[in-house]
Amino acid sequence: MAGLTAATPAVLERARRLVEPSLVAAVDRLCDELRLSARYHFGWVEADGSSSTAGSGKGLRPALAVLSAEAVGVDASTAIPGAVAVQLVHDFSLVHDDIIDGDVERRHRPTVWAVFGVDDAVITGDALHNLAFQVLLEAPDPLPTEERVRATTRLVAATTAMIAGQAADMAFDDQPEVDLAACLAMEADKTGALLGYSASVGAVLAGAPDDQVDALEAFGRELGLAFQAVDDVLGIWGDPAVTGKATGNDLRERKKSMPVAMVLSAGDAAADELRAIYDVDGDLTDEHVVRATSIIETAGGRDGTVTEARRRLDAALAALDDVGLAAGAVEELTGLARFVAERDF
Amino acid sequence: MAGLTAATPAVLERARRLVEPSLVAAVDRLCDELRLSARYHFGWVEADGSSSTAGSGKGLRPALAVLSAEAVGVDASTAIPGAVAVQLVHDFSLVHDDIIDGDVERRHRPTVWAVFGVDDAVITGDALHNLAFQVLLEAPDPLPTEERVRATTRLVAATTAMIAGQAADMAFDDQPEVDLAACLAMEADKTGALLGYSASVGAVLAGAPDDQVDALEAFGRELGLAFQAVDDVLGIWGDPAVTGKATGNDLRERKKSMPVAMVLSAGDAAADELRAIYDVDGDLTDEHVVRATSIIETAGGRDGTVTEARRRLDAALAALDDVGLAAGAVEELTGLARFVAERDF
Repeated sequence: MAGLTAATPAVLERARRLVEPSLVAAVDRLCDELRLSARYHFGWVEADGSSSTAGSGKGLRPALAVLSAEAVGVDASTAIPGAVAVQLVHDFSLVHDDIIDGDVERRHRPTVWAVFGVDDAVITGDALHNLAFQVLLEAPDPLPTEERVRATTRLVAATTAMIAGQAADMAFDDQPEVDLAACLAMEADKTGALLGYSASVGAVLAGAPDDQVDALEAFGRELGLAFQAVDDVLGIWGDPAVTGKATGNDLRERKKSMPVAMVLSAGDAAADELRAIYDVDGDLTDEHVVRATSIIETAGGRDGTVTEARRRLDAALAALDDVGLAAGAVEELTGLARFVAERDF
Repeated sequence: MAGLTAATPAVLERARRLVEPSLVAAVDRLCDELRLSARYHFGWVEADGSSSTAGSGKGLRPALAVLSAEAVGVDASTAIPGAVAVQLVHDFSLVHDDIIDGDVERRHRPTVWAVFGVDDAVITGDALHNLAFQVLLEAPDPLPTEERVRATTRLVAATTAMIAGQAADMAFDDQPEVDLAACLAMEADKTGALLGYSASVGAVLAGAPDDQVDALEAFGRELGLAFQAVDDVLGIWGDPAVTGKATGNDLRERKKSMPVAMVLSAGDAAADELRAIYDVDGDLTDEHVVRATSIIETAGGRDGTVTEARRRLDAALAALDDVGLAAGAVEELTGLARFVAERDF
């Protein structure tokens, strides 16, 4: 797998073309004072309002939403309000997380708080959060009330989990020990819940039966954990040119990500040495980061996390079996999952 | 009116007893990491988790919600999910506004960000915001779907307006001129929308006809503007022991509140002198604040704002006429409105 990156799945671009006009229209509904910072965040404009080709992220969530509609045999457009809403929740969380983590760069550009200040970033995030529910509840299309409510209720629950996951992640900073189970539970909340929502909202809006909705939701949740495991590997060993973050960034920030939790929870000499580095007063030096990287690699934190990513990918794909989903959509979901979970280690 | 404060209306305590158990239960649903900061904000516990008698605010919004159910002839308990939800939205906005305004004290206690840090305050506010919608959408009572959706959709819209109002208020800081119309529009969004929601949600949940819902909503919106006008007077001339803020606080922070906007928009010598003070580099001195207070008073900004408060109170009360609301509830709404709008000037 090393060195190989799968070709970008066509569904990402297809979903973007389908969903982005509605996303742009939703963001344009924001009041004048918040539209610029929001549009800047999405990479549509620069901070001075001039147009930008920066673009937003990969668009994984809208692609999952679109495929989840097609998987239950309805037109992709059924998923649009859900795809827009989940993208808005994801981006609200990014704007606020960048404040919380003190991150000054995202997608190779300064973050919203770094450009517009913390105050504007707080309220921009609030507006995106609220807009997500507004899009689902006020969608002008002929969406039946029952499906609309079900999709909104599930989004609120997924967002609750996402916020709880972020709070748990923040609390890890103050905990000397974080075991693998706690780390996985945190990541299931922080990333898994919203990906599970993304991968099922099209089916929910289509009024699909519970077993199909549940299967798609499980697929997304497991994919979220695979995604997060890969992210945790890249946060230590990733190429800065690709990740947009400095090498060893997660260690420098003393994050208790999956590879770190695996080593710390082993209770052996490697755990002690890694903990001693994390307990150093003041900023960690490059030497600390290099040494910590080496400890984790030798103690199996890297291989263990890669294995976890593969296990979660297998679980995601297995969830799609035997519930009568459309073969073409399952094939695209599989391709998308492999693309996400087999990014270049 | 000066020196006279009406007795506290009994409905405030009655609504609190009815609504608070559900509010406490909702907040207790938050994840472990966020429960303490949220409960601290509501004045139920101290920062170390020990019990507190600080208590939350007046409970104006739950009282309005309860009365709006009774006004259309249903039991007060019908309003509970709406009362809890609107209180949660209000408190989410307070937690985030205190970050934005840099306010270190609220209700005579340190604000959430001052105690727990900005990061925890951002995510605590996010959790309360999300919880509001969860309470309405997942209420276990036998609420019909249609009313539930209507109440949720209206809450999302009111919250959108509230956020836009806060954004407009923040933008005023960078604008040399703010005229009275812009100030009123901002305050209608920032305060009026959520009070309009509060004063109608019980009727919405009861499935009352549109003319009753609209009348109650108009009552709340106008009351919100009266409330805000009084607040703006108290922000300059209020007794610190009562308001919990330093005398002249709004001027020291160079707020463009209603009395200030009235003077600035007159375009005369008083406007020039007041603008010159607001344009001073660095912090304003006590002398600046005293002089600005005197300019505004002499130029009629105080009297004009008091008149505006009375005009809005009259409009609020007039809205309750002729739509067949229950007389007892109208009487209590009137008493509550007078209590709010005739606080000690």
